[in-house]
Amino acid sequence: MTTADAGVADLHTVLNALADPVRLEMARRLHDAGQSLACTALYDTVGKATASHHFKILREAGIIERHAAGQGAMFSLRDTDVEATYPGLLTAVLSAANPLLAP
Amino acid sequence: MTTADAGVADLHTVLNALADPVRLEMARRLHDAGQSLACTALYDTVGKATASHHFKILREAGIIERHAAGQGAMFSLRDTDVEATYPGLLTAVLSAANPLLAP
Repeated sequence: MTTADAGVADLHTVLNALADPVRLEMARRLHDAGQSLACTALYDTVGKATASHHFKILREAGIIERHAAGQGAMFSLRDTDVEATYPGLLTAVLSAANPLLAP
Repeated sequence: MTTADAGVADLHTVLNALADPVRLEMARRLHDAGQSLACTALYDTVGKATASHHFKILREAGIIERHAAGQGAMFSLRDTDVEATYPGLLTAVLSAANPLLAP
């Protein structure tokens, strides 16, 4: 089950969501994986409660979505939605965050 | 005289600088103008002290630079520097902020 998708948030909210190092790393890992990942695969420098806070901000910005998966949760990047709303933005940010993605 | 340029800041600092609506509008006006503008041409919804705070954050992020000009100050967008550091980022952000720039 995928939780209901709202639209991608306004530009300020999206930029603010990506400006935090922990959240940017979460998005980068999802992008690199190219598929849904378990929530626990998306962070390792913060605790569970802090991670939940960051997931919430990324979800509210429309950057990631949550999929229930048994006891846990999976997340995926809403790259198609973000690209449609803000062309080139997520690619530019994630390329900057991840030199391996740079052209 | 142009104040000494530092490099463009780290990605988090740049995204945080652009995430604020007042600062994004300052950058957008400089981009649209395509030339240096007087500081007073860059804001109208905040007071002078608040604007100075925002200019400082944009300068420290490496997004704008200040040129002394008689009694006042002029600012210009460091779009070439930002583009060289984070390819596509500023264009994507400003295009999203300004539908007139979109392809």
